[in-house]
Amino acid sequence: MTKLPKISSFDDVRALIADLPGPDAEAETAARAREPRLTKPAGSLGRLEQLAAWTATWQGRYPPRLATPNVHVFAGNHGIVAQGVSAFPADVTKQMVHNFEHGGAAINQMCESVGAGLCVEILDLDHPTRDFSVEPAMSETECAGAIDFGMHVVDAASDVVCLGEMGIGNTTASAAICHALFGGEAALWCGAGTGLDGDGVRRKIDVVARSVALHKAALGDGLEVLRHFGGREMAAIAGAVLAARLLRVPVMLDGYVSTSSAATLHALAPGVLDHCQVGHVSQEPGHAALLEKIGKRALLDMDMRLGEATGAALAVSLLKAAVACHNGMMTFEQAGVSDKG
Amino acid sequence: MTKLPKISSFDDVRALIADLPGPDAEAETAARAREPRLTKPAGSLGRLEQLAAWTATWQGRYPPRLATPNVHVFAGNHGIVAQGVSAFPADVTKQMVHNFEHGGAAINQMCESVGAGLCVEILDLDHPTRDFSVEPAMSETECAGAIDFGMHVVDAASDVVCLGEMGIGNTTASAAICHALFGGEAALWCGAGTGLDGDGVRRKIDVVARSVALHKAALGDGLEVLRHFGGREMAAIAGAVLAARLLRVPVMLDGYVSTSSAATLHALAPGVLDHCQVGHVSQEPGHAALLEKIGKRALLDMDMRLGEATGAALAVSLLKAAVACHNGMMTFEQAGVSDKG
Repeated sequence: MTKLPKISSFDDVRALIADLPGPDAEAETAARAREPRLTKPAGSLGRLEQLAAWTATWQGRYPPRLATPNVHVFAGNHGIVAQGVSAFPADVTKQMVHNFEHGGAAINQMCESVGAGLCVEILDLDHPTRDFSVEPAMSETECAGAIDFGMHVVDAASDVVCLGEMGIGNTTASAAICHALFGGEAALWCGAGTGLDGDGVRRKIDVVARSVALHKAALGDGLEVLRHFGGREMAAIAGAVLAARLLRVPVMLDGYVSTSSAATLHALAPGVLDHCQVGHVSQEPGHAALLEKIGKRALLDMDMRLGEATGAALAVSLLKAAVACHNGMMTFEQAGVSDKG
Repeated sequence: MTKLPKISSFDDVRALIADLPGPDAEAETAARAREPRLTKPAGSLGRLEQLAAWTATWQGRYPPRLATPNVHVFAGNHGIVAQGVSAFPADVTKQMVHNFEHGGAAINQMCESVGAGLCVEILDLDHPTRDFSVEPAMSETECAGAIDFGMHVVDAASDVVCLGEMGIGNTTASAAICHALFGGEAALWCGAGTGLDGDGVRRKIDVVARSVALHKAALGDGLEVLRHFGGREMAAIAGAVLAARLLRVPVMLDGYVSTSSAATLHALAPGVLDHCQVGHVSQEPGHAALLEKIGKRALLDMDMRLGEATGAALAVSLLKAAVACHNGMMTFEQAGVSDKG
């Protein structure tokens, strides 16, 4: 069994990233060899064919399996809410965690609908990160601790993990991360979040622009960007992405916050997100721009912007269907169907 | 219980269309009243919120239900294959029906994956329609008979019906239908189908252009277009769309062939497809153009082009999740979550 290392510093993370396992070429070859023999015109299942091969490749086994999808919702609080950047009060993070635990939220219904397990991962809600318009959101120790926390919630028995979040204020954290990582105008990365009006969005843009300018000199790499602007739930998502790679569990990212958390790793090393799909493209406008920067095409576009891993969980049904078709279809030979004339 | 009429002529269809039931305003109002009370920012589930309300509206009940989705795959053969417009031989229609009946095709795996029932509806495979580059594909009696057949396979106990097809040569029939209904260049409506090469596609374009020109004077309405170019499986899909409306069963259309079959009804009366969603947009290039003409936005875009109702069945998982969220989520009041500040 793969043993996960203890992460206490950013150097621990950098060492881990320098030595990540790659794709399983044998599993991938087996998937690509079977696909053209199945009873359908070559390529006619489109992205489902790619998803089946990708699942085998990153599970490191053939045939791929999708019996046990698990969803993790990471919850954290953000000091930046002091700047009036959210339409909802910060108390809502804890109230929604309670709602998750009692089965009343969207993600609960979604998990039941797609047959996925749900784990709520709570990161010190009574101690929000610091207001990053004034000082870094986290110390290196705090950020590394949250990464370590996220690493150790991933169950190696998962066939895929969906990584989502709850944290009032965290689209502002995402906007700052993206502005710091990829540049452009701050406005490109700022949307209405849970429902800001025009004045609120303008305030958010100003906070993001000022904060990134304030810390600019200290933003040496993706981990420093994560520490300066991220929440604990976002650092935990980055940790879960790394653990999943080590444990050979494919990852389904959710929306803007989930993807921007993972993007801090992408900034450290190309290919570090190759075992991740993005479940949907959010209506939060920065998400489409972010996906272009990291070279990912989302699976769904349903005008959603809720977070909670809802977009990722919804996309599990596509992954399940992809694996079911790949594994269960008969070949031309088995079915007695004439191949292309 | 709603009694379905017997269809023996196009006048029977026209009379039916003139008197179709509309949306259930009470169910729709109930859905729209509940949605903003659920524990999420207003509108944050995007198209899922719309789908839940749409399901209630066209099921004519509140709450909506999605426990019993059923998939129908209609199979027919086409005389137009004599013109060399398909990459696969016509025998494959029957071979694939055998494959459906023995659980080996993509749609079998898909139905199992999303929890849908599957019915294969066989339309006289030993008697292909006539070659429409020479004469009309069907007589009015044959076409009305196939519509009637399709009407009587829909089970009123279905919570949604997915309508798909199998028929070697039927993307050429779809191209001719679209070219006849909506004009434009014949090339706009012609793609590679199951895998034609460049020469094959050019031959297909020529056949479609010549055939529509040949019959132009006789193409008085959508039903005449359907009779001249459609297959029996396509007429049956049109019939199933009408029966579903009468029985208050929402419809999930599949790809290019399924949508073009339904589009012959759209040409008869605006609103006749209001109880239909389109599961996915096909890679067959005419499908996107067709969706624009009938004012529909597909739910999925997975680069698929298989038919068999695979895109429609895959979209059932979205409909299930939409209904599960709408029905199962707690309200702000129930969950003790603060509403927008």
